[in-house]
Amino acid sequence: MNEYPSKVLQDAVEAIGSLPGVGSRSAMRLALHLLRQPAENIHHFASAVDALADKVHYCSECNMICDGDTCGICSDDRRDHGTVCVVESVRDVMSIEATGQYKGVYHVLGGIISPINGVGPGDLAIGSLVERLQAAGPETEVILALSGDVEGETTSLYLYKKISSLCGKVSTLARGLAFGDDLEYADSVTLGRSIVNRQEFKPQ
Amino acid sequence: MNEYPSKVLQDAVEAIGSLPGVGSRSAMRLALHLLRQPAENIHHFASAVDALADKVHYCSECNMICDGDTCGICSDDRRDHGTVCVVESVRDVMSIEATGQYKGVYHVLGGIISPINGVGPGDLAIGSLVERLQAAGPETEVILALSGDVEGETTSLYLYKKISSLCGKVSTLARGLAFGDDLEYADSVTLGRSIVNRQEFKPQ
Repeated sequence: MNEYPSKVLQDAVEAIGSLPGVGSRSAMRLALHLLRQPAENIHHFASAVDALADKVHYCSECNMICDGDTCGICSDDRRDHGTVCVVESVRDVMSIEATGQYKGVYHVLGGIISPINGVGPGDLAIGSLVERLQAAGPETEVILALSGDVEGETTSLYLYKKISSLCGKVSTLARGLAFGDDLEYADSVTLGRSIVNRQEFKPQ
Repeated sequence: MNEYPSKVLQDAVEAIGSLPGVGSRSAMRLALHLLRQPAENIHHFASAVDALADKVHYCSECNMICDGDTCGICSDDRRDHGTVCVVESVRDVMSIEATGQYKGVYHVLGGIISPINGVGPGDLAIGSLVERLQAAGPETEVILALSGDVEGETTSLYLYKKISSLCGKVSTLARGLAFGDDLEYADSVTLGRSIVNRQEFKPQ
């Protein structure tokens, strides 16, 4: 006898087990959980996931996922359209939005330059960023909000060369010790940069 | 702006988050992972799960899931059809099969008697078990392999009353210390029962 009593179950377990962080035992547990649900719940689950394939739209302006042609941020007049925050992914937009501290708009690259993973500048939404900045005029501020690793730094540098002549200001996220961090446990690169990039002390 | 940039994404995150043990952050991570996959991978995932709703068959003999009319165990002549192991779920059959120690056949109840969860004897495959034993004749041995908690014991007792007159022998799983268990850390109920149900020592 096969390890799986049913090919249908096996297919489902293998599909669920292909998700990151879901091992084969978890996948089996989840598949058997779904199997116990009423058929309409399973159909609902499957169609909700299936919709990710072709029912998600991308904002024509910033490349963020949305339901219509333009996302809720780009179509919001109260946002500052003169500040464009360049991020790697949809997730990053959601993280920054969750802080409630940013009132500008975004540009989602859809990835990061990574020769190891075969991702070059041509695979990212860089052309549309250049066009957008050309249309927006020289007053625009661009915030490069990419990750602090080598790939993020490489992409930031590449973008800086492409866009610095098109916009008034290019900035990047402040890096340093996290709030609440203890000096004793900070890694030396972060601590070193925190000292080099020290900021004026402003009592509040 | 809504917390979710897209209704499609929200639906998918909520569907994935409805799985047991998957929190909202994991669900978001998994949904965004799927979103990055090629459309055909998403369709494949969704259809593999969707098939659980109506493409899974149940063995007409033992109620185990299978692909045809009869499962691989019931249709296997080398199995001992005179021994029927009664279990709660599909998962239990797979666990016992994985031991490689059992050569009989199974009967999957599809649940356990649990008044708190509103599951009564009528919701379980008990009628078909009775019919099966009536057809099989009085030589059959039935192994009640249900869990050791109150609900399992209740169900075992209920089944015993229903079937003891129909079959030659009703047995249950041996319970005691697990292999490798240290007496010092065993719970007192298990240790107590291990002493009461002590077995003859057979040097091998």
